[in-house]
Amino acid sequence: MTVERWGIFELTLSGPADGNPYVEVELTAEFQYRNRIVAVDGFYDGDGAYKIRFSPDREGTWWYRTSSNAPALDGRAGEFLVGPPGQGNHGPVRAVGGWRFEYADGTRHESYGTTCYHWTHTGDEDHERRTLESLAASPFNKVRMCLLPTAAMTPPRIAFAGDTPGQLDPTRFDPEFFRHFEGRIADLLELGIEADVIIFHPYDKGHWGVDNLTPEQDRFLVRYVVARLAAFRNVWWSMSNEFDFNKAKTMIDWDRLLQYLQRIDPYRRLASIHNGTAMFEHASIYDFGKPWTTHQSIQHWDAGLTAEWRMRHPKPVVLDELGYEGDIDRRWGNLTGREITRRFWEGMTRGGFVGHGECYVDTEHRWISSGGTLIGESPERIAFLRSIIDQGPADWIAARDRGYRLDYFGDRRPAYYDVELDDHDHRVEIIDTWAMTVEPLPGVFRGRCRIPLGRTDLAVRISR
Amino acid sequence: MTVERWGIFELTLSGPADGNPYVEVELTAEFQYRNRIVAVDGFYDGDGAYKIRFSPDREGTWWYRTSSNAPALDGRAGEFLVGPPGQGNHGPVRAVGGWRFEYADGTRHESYGTTCYHWTHTGDEDHERRTLESLAASPFNKVRMCLLPTAAMTPPRIAFAGDTPGQLDPTRFDPEFFRHFEGRIADLLELGIEADVIIFHPYDKGHWGVDNLTPEQDRFLVRYVVARLAAFRNVWWSMSNEFDFNKAKTMIDWDRLLQYLQRIDPYRRLASIHNGTAMFEHASIYDFGKPWTTHQSIQHWDAGLTAEWRMRHPKPVVLDELGYEGDIDRRWGNLTGREITRRFWEGMTRGGFVGHGECYVDTEHRWISSGGTLIGESPERIAFLRSIIDQGPADWIAARDRGYRLDYFGDRRPAYYDVELDDHDHRVEIIDTWAMTVEPLPGVFRGRCRIPLGRTDLAVRISR
Repeated sequence: MTVERWGIFELTLSGPADGNPYVEVELTAEFQYRNRIVAVDGFYDGDGAYKIRFSPDREGTWWYRTSSNAPALDGRAGEFLVGPPGQGNHGPVRAVGGWRFEYADGTRHESYGTTCYHWTHTGDEDHERRTLESLAASPFNKVRMCLLPTAAMTPPRIAFAGDTPGQLDPTRFDPEFFRHFEGRIADLLELGIEADVIIFHPYDKGHWGVDNLTPEQDRFLVRYVVARLAAFRNVWWSMSNEFDFNKAKTMIDWDRLLQYLQRIDPYRRLASIHNGTAMFEHASIYDFGKPWTTHQSIQHWDAGLTAEWRMRHPKPVVLDELGYEGDIDRRWGNLTGREITRRFWEGMTRGGFVGHGECYVDTEHRWISSGGTLIGESPERIAFLRSIIDQGPADWIAARDRGYRLDYFGDRRPAYYDVELDDHDHRVEIIDTWAMTVEPLPGVFRGRCRIPLGRTDLAVRISR
Repeated sequence: MTVERWGIFELTLSGPADGNPYVEVELTAEFQYRNRIVAVDGFYDGDGAYKIRFSPDREGTWWYRTSSNAPALDGRAGEFLVGPPGQGNHGPVRAVGGWRFEYADGTRHESYGTTCYHWTHTGDEDHERRTLESLAASPFNKVRMCLLPTAAMTPPRIAFAGDTPGQLDPTRFDPEFFRHFEGRIADLLELGIEADVIIFHPYDKGHWGVDNLTPEQDRFLVRYVVARLAAFRNVWWSMSNEFDFNKAKTMIDWDRLLQYLQRIDPYRRLASIHNGTAMFEHASIYDFGKPWTTHQSIQHWDAGLTAEWRMRHPKPVVLDELGYEGDIDRRWGNLTGREITRRFWEGMTRGGFVGHGECYVDTEHRWISSGGTLIGESPERIAFLRSIIDQGPADWIAARDRGYRLDYFGDRRPAYYDVELDDHDHRVEIIDTWAMTVEPLPGVFRGRCRIPLGRTDLAVRISR
């Protein structure tokens, strides 16, 4: 059996089905490559089946050996060969060079997120397929998606056993729910899309009882989630959405959960936590100086602050929420496509990464809630932005020192833009970010130059 | 001789002209109305002339008596009658009720500021007249204007004696400069426009030597300015523009200057101090909890934060600078008229007051620098906003409790707006803030109502 590098090796074992295997049966495995050993938790998948998933990061021979308090699962050993990554497999995304992302094989990665919080919770497979088709045709390469349901939802299954509100059993999970959920993560992986898995959120209102569990129950869930999902190389962890809105938990609870996650995740996947609205003083943005976060997942309307967040911490700035395109009557959900496009340009040209969302009244499903079909004006402009970024250097902020500039003017419309270039010959192009055109100015430029502008939504690209 | 209430009583005396009268001659006067005594500084006006200006706030007989170390100026006494205020004289503007302004006679006052920093420094009387004509035709009722020149200017005179850079004599003033300057303040008074006099600014760069004077020299200037100008009822004090950009002064210097101003100003005119750019953490906004400030003079791009500043301190929020309409290549000077209009609506509907500015490349003078002619698209929209505000209650924020609402949606375009009204009958109007139209919805509204919107730049006015 050969596994591709950064793929998944999965071992299935039979063991005890009586009592509560989730609580009573301990199962771990050590995977060894040369002198390196990685410890991994197994998980109970129901009906007496136990699984151990592992994603190897080196090519060659790996050995494994299980440990368990159940004799049938203990001391099982074997080896397998890891071959080169397959087509389109660049490994997991990681934070590099301070503020950038990169795939593990060194391929550049810029994050263009979107949000479909509960697209896997509708129970409608056609709808899920439409969502995947929409994502495949979109510029987005990351989806924020929740593990747990909200109070308003009636999903066919939830993560815990007991699918009726108030009947939830926090000591058992629903393997069927997880098989479905990880199937969608695998679908995203096929499409080259990162799954930004939101473990907790504050929207339960006492309905299912999933946002005010005890610290032990929280860790029990996190451990199971990591055992099942961490092996998918496209998984990112978002410990909570709008964590500061959860009144049942304190900052210390979140710190401990993130520390716990960091300790048990064998791959140290990208991990962060997302604040609720923090328009003033930024008080509720998590302190991303804490070493158990890999990137800054921020909700704030003002993408113009990206440079400030970069100054705060040398970690990628991901503006996962800065308002959504749409026309619903909630403050966060009625921006025009033009405004969302502006915020993407604003954040990206300052060295951040921006997340999209859409919520129109006249759609069967709201994209941000459950996916479906995109009807807004911003996605094609975000695709255009992505093509512009792709044409430039991966480190487009640092590349200013090498004569590359991508300067964006947004809702401003200076009559001209004076710029001081060095003695190299430079090419200057006017980019209309709304009309999606690139107009090269004739000739070459050096020294002090005046570039005519005079309308809104322009960017200027300068390169040697 | 009769003086109108809140007008100016002026006494001119002859005294010593030798030596340095600015430094050597002390002159004060006590003005008495019944059992109330107000102490006022006199000032030297050159050529042996000394003046005492006083603005009485009560009708009836006032007595005065001078004190001086110069015998010719000492012990001069007299009385005068104060009559009712003349047409259009509502007294000085003051802060009331936490966050509002009001004239002393109780007439409502909302502040619609504009900025013409050095409109009195051009030496061109035609230009000054054009500026006054523009202001008279505009919606603006306050002008921010600097006392001191910038490094780049060549004004015919400056506040201090010695009109050549480097030759400035900080122990003597130029009465001719002040006569001209106060003439313009009087012109504004005629037009019912407040003069927001900016005493210091940080733009001197060592040229004239006026932004790095000693604390004693600063107080010497402030005292002279107060003696000359405080009697004009339309004067507001702005101790400095962008005070935090002045590296020669510390926060303690500004505190002391504002305390000093509060102590010597017989009328306690409106007084504040204006920060430089403070986009992040608001660190450089002055602490307006300090009791020697009457209102919050703020530079910040985000008028949406108005409610937050209101929460901070129960003092009027005046967003004197949030970017200017224009097309110059400075970040602060190339907003569209639409964006400035939005920021005005945003600030006003949240209970703040917003300041305007304009700077187009293709104008002989930049309005914000020296006045002249307004060519932008925002002034007529600000006039429209002012007409809408004028039609509503003076305390339009508090009036929500009485069924009045003016809700603004800006660049957002919800399809509809759901609002819960009480059992009174309400009128609902859709205001297009850009097209300047008011469209009443047919019928009366009560209880839960859905108001159709669906495009940007709308406001909804609801009233019983």
